[in-house]
Amino acid sequence: MKYNGQLLAELEFALKPIKVGVLGLGTVGGGTVNILKRNAAEIARRAGREIIITRASARDLQKPRICDTQDIQLTTDPLDIINDPDIDIIVETIGGAGTVKDMILTAIANGKHIVTANKSLIATHGNEIFAKASEQGVIVAFEAAVAGGIPIIKAIREGLSGNQIQWVAGIINGTGNFILTEMRDKGRDFADVLAEAQALGYAEADPTFDVEGIDAGHKLTILASIAFGIPLQFEKVYTEGITEIARIDVEYAEQLGYRIKHLGIARKTAEGIELRVHPTLIPERRLIANVNGVMNAVLVKGDAVGATLYYGAGAGAEPTGSSVVADVIDVVRALTSDPENRVPHLAFRADALADIPVLSAERIKTSYYLRLNAEDKPGVLADVTKILADHDISIEAIIQKEPPKDSTALPIIMLTQITLEQEMNAAIRAIEALPTVSGKVNRIRMETLG
Amino acid sequence: MKYNGQLLAELEFALKPIKVGVLGLGTVGGGTVNILKRNAAEIARRAGREIIITRASARDLQKPRICDTQDIQLTTDPLDIINDPDIDIIVETIGGAGTVKDMILTAIANGKHIVTANKSLIATHGNEIFAKASEQGVIVAFEAAVAGGIPIIKAIREGLSGNQIQWVAGIINGTGNFILTEMRDKGRDFADVLAEAQALGYAEADPTFDVEGIDAGHKLTILASIAFGIPLQFEKVYTEGITEIARIDVEYAEQLGYRIKHLGIARKTAEGIELRVHPTLIPERRLIANVNGVMNAVLVKGDAVGATLYYGAGAGAEPTGSSVVADVIDVVRALTSDPENRVPHLAFRADALADIPVLSAERIKTSYYLRLNAEDKPGVLADVTKILADHDISIEAIIQKEPPKDSTALPIIMLTQITLEQEMNAAIRAIEALPTVSGKVNRIRMETLG
Ligand SMILES: NC(=O)c1ccc[n+]([C@@H]2O[C@H](COP(=O)([O-])OP(=O)(O)OC[C@H]3O[C@@H](n4cnc5c(N)ncnc54)[C@H](OP(=O)(O)O)[C@@H]3O)[C@@H](O)[C@H]2O)c1
Ligand SMILES: NC(=O)c1ccc[n+]([C@@H]2O[C@H](COP(=O)([O-])OP(=O)(O)OC[C@H]3O[C@@H](n4cnc5c(N)ncnc54)[C@H](OP(=O)(O)O)[C@@H]3O)[C@@H](O)[C@H]2O)c1
Repeated sequence: MKYNGQLLAELEFALKPIKVGVLGLGTVGGGTVNILKRNAAEIARRAGREIIITRASARDLQKPRICDTQDIQLTTDPLDIINDPDIDIIVETIGGAGTVKDMILTAIANGKHIVTANKSLIATHGNEIFAKASEQGVIVAFEAAVAGGIPIIKAIREGLSGNQIQWVAGIINGTGNFILTEMRDKGRDFADVLAEAQALGYAEADPTFDVEGIDAGHKLTILASIAFGIPLQFEKVYTEGITEIARIDVEYAEQLGYRIKHLGIARKTAEGIELRVHPTLIPERRLIANVNGVMNAVLVKGDAVGATLYYGAGAGAEPTGSSVVADVIDVVRALTSDPENRVPHLAFRADALADIPVLSAERIKTSYYLRLNAEDKPGVLADVTKILADHDISIEAIIQKEPPKDSTALPIIMLTQITLEQEMNAAIRAIEALPTVSGKVNRIRMETLG
Repeated sequence: MKYNGQLLAELEFALKPIKVGVLGLGTVGGGTVNILKRNAAEIARRAGREIIITRASARDLQKPRICDTQDIQLTTDPLDIINDPDIDIIVETIGGAGTVKDMILTAIANGKHIVTANKSLIATHGNEIFAKASEQGVIVAFEAAVAGGIPIIKAIREGLSGNQIQWVAGIINGTGNFILTEMRDKGRDFADVLAEAQALGYAEADPTFDVEGIDAGHKLTILASIAFGIPLQFEKVYTEGITEIARIDVEYAEQLGYRIKHLGIARKTAEGIELRVHPTLIPERRLIANVNGVMNAVLVKGDAVGATLYYGAGAGAEPTGSSVVADVIDVVRALTSDPENRVPHLAFRADALADIPVLSAERIKTSYYLRLNAEDKPGVLADVTKILADHDISIEAIIQKEPPKDSTALPIIMLTQITLEQEMNAAIRAIEALPTVSGKVNRIRMETLG
């Protein structure tokens, strides 16, 4: 049964191509233009109508571009595009959470649909942006913001919509994974590989966002919201980088049958939600332990489906552009749909988001890899294990290593069972205070991901 | 802007829960009921309204069920449900392509939306079913038909919609993968593992569909259509089972750095589309080479995104039910949308499906693993390599193995470069005709999947 309004809408719809304006013509913006042009025919066969980029903006119009901009009207002022009544969809590929936020809010107020690759914007201002978008009945799509070309937002939000998601664990920063992969494969040091990653253009000149886990934290924030139906809460993510990972830990982990990966983990527990980004030992037989180089992968555990994994390029012009274009096509499909009945921005309807507490770092429960340097004396191990027992921490394995050439201190490696982070913190303080233990206890969390 | 018709539709929509009728209460039907009941609250938070199963059918109403059917009205006649004007969505989990086809067509004629897990139905009658569904403006959703709980239909059809898909390669039959995994891990023989799989309930009493590649062929047919925008053409799939795989081939492959997997492969080439299911040597470092046991995985290569992989449970009550329920929620979302503007059944609009030829088996291009038994005489290798050269087949590697205890014949293993299947067939006939070669040449195709 077709309503008159629907017939009218269909008619309007069939007549004109969809006009897209792209803000930012760098890596992702350029990749998006290239895909929409090269695959125009294929895309029209899918979407049923033409999708064309009529306008784009960049700061410097003289800069060489990775894409052909001949038939695109260029401007240095994004507002020219945002205020153009002819534009149906705004693609935002400028980045950053500052001025871009105001641009997006203006575009929404103008009734534009938005497609963005901007994880920091969504993770830090998404709640406000989605509220305004819903008021205006427009869509803000952000598949490209998490794990580049992997359609992970769609998989969780739609593909697994029958599940109660139990946890999500992902390698969601390519630079970090490249560094850890090189450290393992070639026995290289962190600083050395980082310098190479910067030279190769993987890592920014300021690599903090990548190696300190901030970028992964932004992405995890988004994944957790769509998995559990909670508001975006980037400020509550526990974030630990990979800068403290020593080559020796990578080696010991390997000998024990584990790989170290920088994971973003979101887990729903009876007490609340764990949101954490940190280096993690995972069993080498897991598929995700074998995701190497700049590739990304996300494991999602649902109560009905069990564990599923999604793997692909997490960054780059065309992989990220692939997600931008998929979102544009989705928006085109939804243009004539009832806004109330679309897939909600955060997977759950805004009025049904849950107020589940995010747990502080001290309340995380996980198992641990510990490395400490002890004097080669009787009783040291007894002291250490007593402290662990006092804090209710069960030991899974203890391995004593040969002292390195230039030292008499004996490296001791311990794997523990699952314990409360708070207890582990207290135990580590006590162990570090032992006169027979020198230096810091190096602690890396462990997950079985089973 | 809201049309009157839309407002009216919204109002109707908000008032009543969606009523689902389930045909078949076996593994998948039962799993679906369990998920929709257990996760009812979570699903309503996502979908914005209640989704309830009011009716279900099975042959034997006395049989114990894996699900609670207390508040479901049961019948032995599926038509009771199909003709019930109160039912909005029909879930078909009976299976088979015979009587079920007529049931589905009647349901469509009655204006019902359909969600099905039935790959043989879709692969063999999908073209007709989708045409009728489009005429009626109803949706036929089939995520559960391919790779169980993995949202692979959605990933290709929507998540990668900006790409020209170049190829798809998948482990899409869990039973076959279980058998090959056991053969490799434990050095067991095919027949032995098959018997165990049957005892464990993985394989049917008649295992033909699984081990001969027919089930995988059905799924590959569907994947190829949504990847390339071609009509469903199951009859053109080249299908080879795993019954001829010898333990020794699994071992030799291993020694050469390969795993043997039963893959469904769909590839678009300049000459046409390859559609083939067969055992395949793949490099062990590939993630998909490490997908073991009953698990499924699908690799999809797009021109923009590169290679992406999707992994999860390919069968089972709740994993498959997970996909059924996701489809039901998708249908609910699309209820108020313009049918013309929905995601097309086969990803591309029906009027835009392409008439690209499917290549016959002889025209497949791939590389090969060959094993033959030769007499230990000078000149044998020269004869064999000359035949290959005559057919334009380049050799990548030749390995001579020790003769087995009870034989004097020398096993020779060869890996070739990419060649035309037709040439390989001719070369194999010529090699088998050599007086110095005994028995058949065992040929397994090889793919790098890079
Ligand atoms: N790069 C990736 O692989 C990747 C992957 C996933 C997500 N993302 C996200 O995608 C977004 C874009 O990243 P990118 O790598 O494409 O960045 P980029 O290469 O630096 O491109 C940014 C573009 O925005 C323009 N621009 C910068 N500041 C502007 C301003 N204040 N006003 C107007 N235009 C401005 C730049 O103009 P000029 O070219 O003239 O300087 C440039 O064209 C970011 O949010 C990033 O996090 C990137
Ligand atoms: N099993 C899996 O893991 C899986 C995975 C993916 C897809 N699938 C597909 O899902 C479908 C269902 O598979 P399944 O494993 O759930 O099958 P199943 O366990 O054998 O269940 C079939 C159900 O249909 C009923 N039924 C059978 N013939 C019927 C008929 N002629 N009229 C009415 N009802 C009939 C049976 O009733 P009774 O119970 O009273 O005998 C039973 O409840 C198939 O298309 C299969 O290929 C299955």
